[in-house]
Amino acid sequence: MESIRQIIELVKNEGRSKTIAVAAAEDDVVLKAVQKAKEIDLCNFILYGDKTKIQQIAEEIGLDTTNIEIRDASTPLEAAKGAIQAVANGEADLPMKGKLNTSEILSVYLKDEYGLKTGKTMNLVCVFEIPRYHKLLIISDAGMVIAPTLEQKVDIINNAVSVAHKLGIQTPKVAVVGALEQVNPKMPATVDAAILTQMYRRGQIKGCIVDGPFAMDNAISKEAAIHKGINSEVAGDADILIMPDIEAGNILYKTLVYFADAKLASSIVGGKKPVVLTSRADSDESKLNAMAFSILMSTI
Amino acid sequence: MESIRQIIELVKNEGRSKTIAVAAAEDDVVLKAVQKAKEIDLCNFILYGDKTKIQQIAEEIGLDTTNIEIRDASTPLEAAKGAIQAVANGEADLPMKGKLNTSEILSVYLKDEYGLKTGKTMNLVCVFEIPRYHKLLIISDAGMVIAPTLEQKVDIINNAVSVAHKLGIQTPKVAVVGALEQVNPKMPATVDAAILTQMYRRGQIKGCIVDGPFAMDNAISKEAAIHKGINSEVAGDADILIMPDIEAGNILYKTLVYFADAKLASSIVGGKKPVVLTSRADSDESKLNAMAFSILMSTI
Repeated sequence: MESIRQIIELVKNEGRSKTIAVAAAEDDVVLKAVQKAKEIDLCNFILYGDKTKIQQIAEEIGLDTTNIEIRDASTPLEAAKGAIQAVANGEADLPMKGKLNTSEILSVYLKDEYGLKTGKTMNLVCVFEIPRYHKLLIISDAGMVIAPTLEQKVDIINNAVSVAHKLGIQTPKVAVVGALEQVNPKMPATVDAAILTQMYRRGQIKGCIVDGPFAMDNAISKEAAIHKGINSEVAGDADILIMPDIEAGNILYKTLVYFADAKLASSIVGGKKPVVLTSRADSDESKLNAMAFSILMSTI
Repeated sequence: MESIRQIIELVKNEGRSKTIAVAAAEDDVVLKAVQKAKEIDLCNFILYGDKTKIQQIAEEIGLDTTNIEIRDASTPLEAAKGAIQAVANGEADLPMKGKLNTSEILSVYLKDEYGLKTGKTMNLVCVFEIPRYHKLLIISDAGMVIAPTLEQKVDIINNAVSVAHKLGIQTPKVAVVGALEQVNPKMPATVDAAILTQMYRRGQIKGCIVDGPFAMDNAISKEAAIHKGINSEVAGDADILIMPDIEAGNILYKTLVYFADAKLASSIVGGKKPVVLTSRADSDESKLNAMAFSILMSTI
């Protein structure tokens, strides 16, 4: 897959139309995203939340709710419970965060009774289409885990690799990135990178090739890698960048969108079903991509 | 000042031509940078290092050393001592790192006998010209301090502000950046940002306006800031971005260069005289900019 647009086409060409259950849908940004999805017939929706407000906003923005099921809920938390239950019992394929905090919807999601948790870390995995890069670039974790431990970084790699596989990349090249391409014991990011690389070599991380540490330039530029004398299959040709922490990840994410003309699709991956996040600051296109990409990740 | 090109013009229009003392000049990348500088008559050089090797490489690359003073030194460390001494006694205006580690040249630089240290942190300050941003953007620290403490972040701000002043920006807007525009006690970057903002409000940081925490988008996009309901003079109009740590800083730096078509000028700032760094992976243009920018920072 070379472009994010192909994700939307893939999802639309699927036999059965999927259903997204929205938790706390009484928000204009959320309902505009729903509207965009309905415009291209992307999927179905069940909207949980304040029914009166939802219908009011829908009218204001011109969203036709004739074929959209709205289920009243007294609070955002109740809406989350409704949406997650719908996913748990198969009425919906995946949940979408509406007007409530990510931590609120995830605290419901992770309850044993719904059977959606896996015990692994859940991560925000972002797929970027960057004009200056020769292929899609998957980056994690740019929004969920603040300061991932080594074990959490293993989960981040596995989550990102599962995304790559879904996008048709059989053996993704994983670059563990930091400020330096050599191990500096004072830089935990570089130390973790070396450990993760060796874990890969011992067969403890599968379905991909892992190498690190890398500085950003030698992860995505062969020329920069050659200049530094780096001998690595991954250098300059990474499919996946593993970020040292949330600051580096989030700053990179926003920089790509605002300064590098990148297109973006993102999803919270790692549980039984992915969760759709749409941020107020995301473009309409990014929100559509997030829904399509999450739907893709929800298929077996 | 709107473009980095103007820095080179400013330096060339100065009355007296400045002198850069290069520590360990026996390197083709370093000598090519010297060559580029001589081609546009940017400044003078005193080259310290293995004289035979220097002359050999100069001949290989076609660098005319007739008007370049070469002073033999038995080791890179001796070369560093020579270069720093030349700066200390006024023979040269500033030092440039050649074929030795940054830590090696700085360990000489910071010795009391040369009178160059100030007791403040020295930082890599980078000036970017980014096509998608409406003005020059100063970023620090993308290469020197691994995990700056609060006190070090104050120094980083002051160093970046001194750069802004030299570029003619009287009251630069300083955005302290992290993953989130709100304080999360689990995210030290956001906590520090709040503290630094209040230090500014109490007059403890001068010559600028400081605000934070910011996520990257609301620091450089007014629209993103408005979406998040941020009420700040700095939002969307930052002159300076203060990075939470070296990983975020270095990843941002490389991303801007490789993916956002940014031009770059950088210098190590914070001592009595700036230090020129030129990396193997930097473009010829970036190396020229680094020299010109450092010369500018060396003027009173």
